Amino acid sequence: MLKEGERIDDLELKGLKIIQNPEWFCFGIDAVLLSSFSKVKKRERVVDLGTGTGIIPLLLHGKYEPKEIIGVEIQEEVAEMAERSIRLNGLEDRIRIHRGDIKDCFKDIGVNSFDVVVTNPPYKKGSTGIINPHDKKAVSRHEILINLDEIIFTASRLLKGGGRLYMIHRPERLKDIILGLDKNKFSPKRMRFIHPKINKRPSMVMIEAVKAGGDFLLVEEPLYVYNEDGRYTDEINRIYGRL
Amino acid sequence: MLKEGERIDDLELKGLKIIQNPEWFCFGIDAVLLSSFSKVKKRERVVDLGTGTGIIPLLLHGKYEPKEIIGVEIQEEVAEMAERSIRLNGLEDRIRIHRGDIKDCFKDIGVNSFDVVVTNPPYKKGSTGIINPHDKKAVSRHEILINLDEIIFTASRLLKGGGRLYMIHRPERLKDIILGLDKNKFSPKRMRFIHPKINKRPSMVMIEAVKAGGDFLLVEEPLYVYNEDGRYTDEINRIYGRL
Repeated sequence: MLKEGERIDDLELKGLKIIQNPEWFCFGIDAVLLSSFSKVKKRERVVDLGTGTGIIPLLLHGKYEPKEIIGVEIQEEVAEMAERSIRLNGLEDRIRIHRGDIKDCFKDIGVNSFDVVVTNPPYKKGSTGIINPHDKKAVSRHEILINLDEIIFTASRLLKGGGRLYMIHRPERLKDIILGLDKNKFSPKRMRFIHPKINKRPSMVMIEAVKAGGDFLLVEEPLYVYNEDGRYTDEINRIYGRL
Repeated sequence: MLKEGERIDDLELKGLKIIQNPEWFCFGIDAVLLSSFSKVKKRERVVDLGTGTGIIPLLLHGKYEPKEIIGVEIQEEVAEMAERSIRLNGLEDRIRIHRGDIKDCFKDIGVNSFDVVVTNPPYKKGSTGIINPHDKKAVSRHEILINLDEIIFTASRLLKGGGRLYMIHRPERLKDIILGLDKNKFSPKRMRFIHPKINKRPSMVMIEAVKAGGDFLLVEEPLYVYNEDGRYTDEINRIYGRL
């Protein structure tokens, strides 16, 4: 089941496990927080854009058991590893990986068909030219193969009217996010900033947007990651299932 | 100096005083926080859109002593009261009130002429029709005489290229604010959310936007108003000059 350099990690959630290759990248707190921020019902169909190791489908399945989750991943070796994680958990009937480009995946998996799109996209704007498009870490962090506008456009094609997009991103991209959502007929509905500590600037922001949705935005209470003593806050421990 | 129903309050800042009529409205923490968030240089010219009692010009003068501040106010009796506050402080050579509509004030006071525009506008979207346009409290709270887009448009006419707009508003209007800024060639540069307490949703947001400015947005650390014990935080006491 494992290839060279890979390891199996326990997700501490209903016995779920994941295969990761630390030389490529390992899932971070972003994926865990976004999965917790997302709200999914059992009867719903979900797409995760840029699924990487498949961490978000696994966590969403563990938490909500939706009918179907499709993870879209363009990097062949990464997609293949995610498929092995799905088999390792025996979830082939609930989660599948679509190997291909986010930009036109709706042509294959369906237009106006999904209830929920989730994405933990590359945060950094543009690519500088010196970045290697085969470097898996760089592709997950920089907008090399896909940018924010393209992701939002794809999400709007995939979702039914009233469908929800859940995204995590950097606060400095807030303007780009809101303009991109508006251009694609999404309304931001819920927003939550993530702060390393109580008196620190937010390092991330999570957004729920509704396709063709109503026009009321709720900015939620801050999510703090660490207490003053450097330990995880109670809320983070609860999200990780440790409290 | 005082008319019926009016009183004089001490601003606890360089001996400055203000005349207010509690039956109309009194300045709130919004004006104090926005003045503190704004950054103004001595050589700069400033406009406050919807100045009301003139609180923001007085606080900005107390803090920064800019060359000139013009407060724009459409409500005759309120504008007249603000003028008396300016005389009471002997600041006629530094602050003046322009009596008129925000929507076309740039035709009188100047286009592309100012370094800074400040505004604490009505927060509530639209007017319901049952709201009395002569009710001074309602005019200050609801978009009866002016709306957000009109204020941002006016600010863009008043400001020089590179000039700064400082605004305080409700977080639920964030989408409207960012779209309005973008439409009028402003870039949001700095944003700070104000929370009643550490684990509460933000009740207000302050934004600095630059006319024809660069494209980097900094979301700052949260501003908390009260501690858990219900007293002002140290930061609020510092802003009020009590620490």
